[in-house]
Amino acid sequence: MTTFSLRSNVRRAVRRLRAGVWSRDDDVLAAEEPLEIRLLWEEHGELVRKPIAVTMRTPGDDFELATGFLYGEGIIAGQHDLVDVSYCTDEDEEQRLNIVNVTLRPGLTFDVTRLERNFYTTSSCGVCGKAALDALEVQGCEVLPDGPEVSAKVICALPGKLREAQAVFERTGGLHASGLFTAEGRLVSLREDVGRHNAFDKLVGERVLADKMPLGPHMVMLSGRASFELLQKALVARIPVVAAVGAPSSLAVELADAFNITLCGFVKADSLNVYTGEKRILS
Amino acid sequence: MTTFSLRSNVRRAVRRLRAGVWSRDDDVLAAEEPLEIRLLWEEHGELVRKPIAVTMRTPGDDFELATGFLYGEGIIAGQHDLVDVSYCTDEDEEQRLNIVNVTLRPGLTFDVTRLERNFYTTSSCGVCGKAALDALEVQGCEVLPDGPEVSAKVICALPGKLREAQAVFERTGGLHASGLFTAEGRLVSLREDVGRHNAFDKLVGERVLADKMPLGPHMVMLSGRASFELLQKALVARIPVVAAVGAPSSLAVELADAFNITLCGFVKADSLNVYTGEKRILS
Repeated sequence: MTTFSLRSNVRRAVRRLRAGVWSRDDDVLAAEEPLEIRLLWEEHGELVRKPIAVTMRTPGDDFELATGFLYGEGIIAGQHDLVDVSYCTDEDEEQRLNIVNVTLRPGLTFDVTRLERNFYTTSSCGVCGKAALDALEVQGCEVLPDGPEVSAKVICALPGKLREAQAVFERTGGLHASGLFTAEGRLVSLREDVGRHNAFDKLVGERVLADKMPLGPHMVMLSGRASFELLQKALVARIPVVAAVGAPSSLAVELADAFNITLCGFVKADSLNVYTGEKRILS
Repeated sequence: MTTFSLRSNVRRAVRRLRAGVWSRDDDVLAAEEPLEIRLLWEEHGELVRKPIAVTMRTPGDDFELATGFLYGEGIIAGQHDLVDVSYCTDEDEEQRLNIVNVTLRPGLTFDVTRLERNFYTTSSCGVCGKAALDALEVQGCEVLPDGPEVSAKVICALPGKLREAQAVFERTGGLHASGLFTAEGRLVSLREDVGRHNAFDKLVGERVLADKMPLGPHMVMLSGRASFELLQKALVARIPVVAAVGAPSSLAVELADAFNITLCGFVKADSLNVYTGEKRILS
């Protein structure tokens, strides 16, 4: 049995069948391990410590993942809201690399029950796509301004650039990627994970920790499909152009439409579909 | 703007670029809407009502989704634990089709805090892959018995059978699918969703509602990757053979190994990788 590790990939014996011929080989698998995110903050002079999420993720860039998650949830607005992001040192070694403590700045107010509502809704705004969009407005998400203008050619080149930059992907075939690009198509950063949401959170978290928020006009390229939750993260990070290798869902398109995000799907080297915000696309 | 609906797909205007030529067309998108699952049960003569999960799903087979989710979480052990599964009638029409009430049989004991631990862990077993596997044992998951024996040829034929049966997928390109097959490769049922976990839950829920649990020796075919959570659902449903079009994660392989599940990845018409449980595979 393979030992558990915190590497981003794991070697494992495999038996392969190829065109009728069996062989034995080693395969490289994308690692998957739980990560617990704990919030720490001062309240009435005492340190409060609250586990707020557990996500199954590929180890690596864990501080970025925790930071990006909190940014996407509206708990922090930038690096200035953080005092410290570090692994938990209370537990034994194996476990502490799976627990990230995020200490918030004194005086930061946030609604910790909002986090719980993502999973256990008791909100009065109801349960439907329209209500989900309304909730984003209530949270303070604003419609994005027009611009930048981007050539379709630049967008069509993004999947190739993403794949080129995906070192791990080539080996395991098991990782989602999110890439942040300038409006001119220059790769700013790339993050990977078994979970598509985690890859996006890592990408945003990197920018937050580097104190680069709010972002200038950027594009994000997704290796998979575009779901509501990914568009929600793009909206909170105020990324005006979202391109995906796969299909968007109906609610992803509704969100993009309502908040003036340009959403492209099925993006390939010589083709793409523009679902919303086509005025940003130069033909 | 498209109106919100509870159909499984939605038509939407799209601008397409194909080899340098722009056109306007309609596209069919996989629908995505939130579904809230509420548990109802009697306690000291009073009806308790508790929202336990919200999932972004493709409308359709909602009762199966709710039922399969509860089965996978160990809340119910079969159809006999259910009194009623129905849409909520307290809310207005649009919302009530996004809320499923599940009424449990009187006297059923379950640990509702276990559900919360999936998201907010405070368990003493720690946070790591090993602990996640140990937790399954503690929950009562047992190692699967040997058998059935399945020919590699039968497994290689599953992706084709899955795609053939995927009516919606062909149109939207945006849906994950899970297919349940007999050990001889006969399709028992297929379910689709924007979320891969939902597709699996719907599949299991259908069998639970039809009072077909526990399953005989079956195989499940996944249209995407094999993650820890999908293997966990297979284990709870006691499905001994899991085949995936995509890659497995490290922890999915660990789980399959620990509980004697045969796990095949990268399954195509003439090739596959066997990661665990190879004694079930006839060459």
